[in-house]
Amino acid sequence: MTAKPSIEYFPAPRRSLFCSQCGTPVNRRVPEGDNRERDICDHCGAIHYQNPRLVVGTVPVWENRVLLCRRAIEPRYNTWTLPAGFMELSESTAQGAARETLEESGARIKLGELYTLIDLPQIDQVHVFYLAQALGPELDPGPESLEAQWYDEAEIPWDDLAFRTVATTLRHYFEDRKQGVFVPHHYTLESHR
Amino acid sequence: MTAKPSIEYFPAPRRSLFCSQCGTPVNRRVPEGDNRERDICDHCGAIHYQNPRLVVGTVPVWENRVLLCRRAIEPRYNTWTLPAGFMELSESTAQGAARETLEESGARIKLGELYTLIDLPQIDQVHVFYLAQALGPELDPGPESLEAQWYDEAEIPWDDLAFRTVATTLRHYFEDRKQGVFVPHHYTLESHR
Repeated sequence: MTAKPSIEYFPAPRRSLFCSQCGTPVNRRVPEGDNRERDICDHCGAIHYQNPRLVVGTVPVWENRVLLCRRAIEPRYNTWTLPAGFMELSESTAQGAARETLEESGARIKLGELYTLIDLPQIDQVHVFYLAQALGPELDPGPESLEAQWYDEAEIPWDDLAFRTVATTLRHYFEDRKQGVFVPHHYTLESHR
Repeated sequence: MTAKPSIEYFPAPRRSLFCSQCGTPVNRRVPEGDNRERDICDHCGAIHYQNPRLVVGTVPVWENRVLLCRRAIEPRYNTWTLPAGFMELSESTAQGAARETLEESGARIKLGELYTLIDLPQIDQVHVFYLAQALGPELDPGPESLEAQWYDEAEIPWDDLAFRTVATTLRHYFEDRKQGVFVPHHYTLESHR
């Protein structure tokens, strides 16, 4: 089969129409002993559960300045974000956060404590940000970033941040810094842009 | 198509063999601009990403005793666990933890703070346990539990606990109680039984 042009690829939606194990059309119903509808294959017996995803990132800091990356991808193309992305298989949240930081910014960091954990039930995600100390100011943004830059608190582009989890994490960071102590923050954002 | 007997149903493995969107056999390779192998459909363009799953639960307490449930399902049938299970779509970690507690034990609880967050990279899971205060001793275990019971610290069946995340969460709980202050704990367990 001829491969499609790469622009035509897309992340598969959560809802299955065909069984990933045998290719048969699935049925949607509540399995025996369960209380939610699932996509079920009555040919091979596979049940296609779906669960929320983790997004992991960091708040990298160098000499009081915070690292932001300008997104080169959708959603929120051209807006600023803390380095973060979907957690991958075979890694811890900390390893994923460090990996995303390196991939998106090129910053070399020493990872700190888990800082914010944010529930986003409306989009089936949980976002986790770690504190991080940069080991130098050098940056080398990857293909997912148009640029990466160190920001003083006074210069943060609040109106051009990519996600509410980035904005609230940054607000907690600057408030805690003012208080002189960083404590973990856990909260739910009911809506999301 | 005739439905299978429900005993033959099984959770679909992470590896896709067929596209969930169009039923075509998938190919496994690194997509352009990515750095990991994915299951890709070159017919419709769907990329089948896989990510770690969250397991959410609680440490319910009534008059200094902790609630454990004896598992009626595999894995670890007949061993004791804190109430916990896979986080579902459209809920927060807290809502999922409260739901699992009700489903597995029937305990009515007031949810407390996020307590342990445990990375399990070898099995692609992150476990999260909340503190919880029971509103009464009444229990009504659901079909996933053979029984539910309140345990004094001295009576915890340490050798018959279902998972290391349950054992380590309980150890933190009793240590913190001795110290008189509960603080969040975050750690990685490299292997898992």
